[in-house]
Amino acid sequence: MTQAHTTTASAPVTVLGLGDMGRSLARAFVAAGHPTTVWNRSPGKGEDVVALGAVRAASAEEAVRASGLVVCLVDYDASDAVLEPLAGALEGRVLVNLTSDTPARSRQAAAWAAKHSLAYLAGAIMVPVDVVGSADALVFHSGDRAAFAAHEDTLKALGEPATYLGEDHGLAAAYDMAMLDFFYGAMGGLVHAFALARAEGIDGASLAPYLHTIAGILPPIAELTAADVDTRTYAGDGGNLAMMAAGVDHILHTAKGHRLDVSQLAGLKSVTDRAIAEGHGTSSWSSIIEVIAADR
Amino acid sequence: MTQAHTTTASAPVTVLGLGDMGRSLARAFVAAGHPTTVWNRSPGKGEDVVALGAVRAASAEEAVRASGLVVCLVDYDASDAVLEPLAGALEGRVLVNLTSDTPARSRQAAAWAAKHSLAYLAGAIMVPVDVVGSADALVFHSGDRAAFAAHEDTLKALGEPATYLGEDHGLAAAYDMAMLDFFYGAMGGLVHAFALARAEGIDGASLAPYLHTIAGILPPIAELTAADVDTRTYAGDGGNLAMMAAGVDHILHTAKGHRLDVSQLAGLKSVTDRAIAEGHGTSSWSSIIEVIAADR
Repeated sequence: MTQAHTTTASAPVTVLGLGDMGRSLARAFVAAGHPTTVWNRSPGKGEDVVALGAVRAASAEEAVRASGLVVCLVDYDASDAVLEPLAGALEGRVLVNLTSDTPARSRQAAAWAAKHSLAYLAGAIMVPVDVVGSADALVFHSGDRAAFAAHEDTLKALGEPATYLGEDHGLAAAYDMAMLDFFYGAMGGLVHAFALARAEGIDGASLAPYLHTIAGILPPIAELTAADVDTRTYAGDGGNLAMMAAGVDHILHTAKGHRLDVSQLAGLKSVTDRAIAEGHGTSSWSSIIEVIAADR
Repeated sequence: MTQAHTTTASAPVTVLGLGDMGRSLARAFVAAGHPTTVWNRSPGKGEDVVALGAVRAASAEEAVRASGLVVCLVDYDASDAVLEPLAGALEGRVLVNLTSDTPARSRQAAAWAAKHSLAYLAGAIMVPVDVVGSADALVFHSGDRAAFAAHEDTLKALGEPATYLGEDHGLAAAYDMAMLDFFYGAMGGLVHAFALARAEGIDGASLAPYLHTIAGILPPIAELTAADVDTRTYAGDGGNLAMMAAGVDHILHTAKGHRLDVSQLAGLKSVTDRAIAEGHGTSSWSSIIEVIAADR
């Protein structure tokens, strides 16, 4: 199913789709010296990457046939329309879809690729458009291991190292989603913190430096939490759930006193309440996973 | 109301209450060379700090009279019982209460101190017991400005610089609470991320390093958010609310598919839904503050 292409700085690559992110991918491949073929469904997009040296193909099929590695950003809603007609041309090539969706839909796309005996990688770009191709870029790949190995050097043009997460095509989306799950929890708390501070007469600029301090303690806490949840032991040596839940209550009480919306924090409190009711009061904070994932 | 004490490394200080944190405070003062008097309501606590050189007073009043600076950790529920009988002895001294409670209760305690014409500082210790006195320690003070200035050098023994937030006695608790508001949002998201990852076959140890990446982008986002909320302009140049809310929906959908509890994230979604309904879809994420603090 997978052919071992040997890639070098001169390995050709095709980029399908020239929105902001597609053009950024094409620029990164051109900058790394790869002969880069581009195509966009509607004409007129991507003049900038053509000016940098990318070659515009006359059709999607011509674009696919130009390279052993085909990179696209096709939403799974559009994949039937866009990719299905290209199944023949993709034969013997490696297709990498870097669009972000759910793990389940990534696996559906992989099933489509398997049906056509195509070598397929599902990926996720974890950085903004302007960071792609830089030293800070993080790009996930999951799926066909041999396909990744064959094109790893080319994919490094997007961000080095290119990150391969495993053979399950859903993994890139799953890591993406878990990271965003943490991110959005923090982002909701962040804005709520500014709202609470404002209600207490503190402006954002005064509070922000102290929020850096909080952000700084999260990585070691993530490590401790990982150890807790992997072993399902929740020792609670440094601050137990009951103490921390009392802190949540203090914040809720004060925020309600200022007539702030408390939906997110009240949702969290319902979790800590149940965890304490189930006997985790003297366990570590991490023990709330036993309520969040009660079925697992 | 405030006397200007000139403090040096030999300025005497009293610590009332010798629980884990009180003993840690006493150790820090002793280590910095301050004659340190200690007292605890129930006997037998604090042998360790006495062994290091602290002097145990025979009564709370004797302890208070020994120093110009009296540091305590008295929960506001207990302050009537503990502090009221000491009002006379505290006259002409500076009382610093480093217990953490709500801003409103800090202000109530300040009103009590004002009634007795006592110089009073309300504080908050933002680090664990074992960090007090170290270079990483962060201790907030708010209230009587002259009292802080007079004892700043002594208070530096707990953490340097000693942080003074302003004359409103509620400020230490308010900063504390806003920081914890951000912290708990992140901590709820953190454990949920591990639950989602587990459901997708990813163990905690594999996910944790990527969560560091998320934690690392939060400080610059806090700065941008501060600017947005202080100016009440929400330009949304780099990723708007509607796009990010779609990300929240993806996570919710996937988490529900795995039968995970989604209380916290669903609470956040109710906020983003309302903000979008009110026309903030193309604004920055920060614009959710207009829903959270709709009355302000």
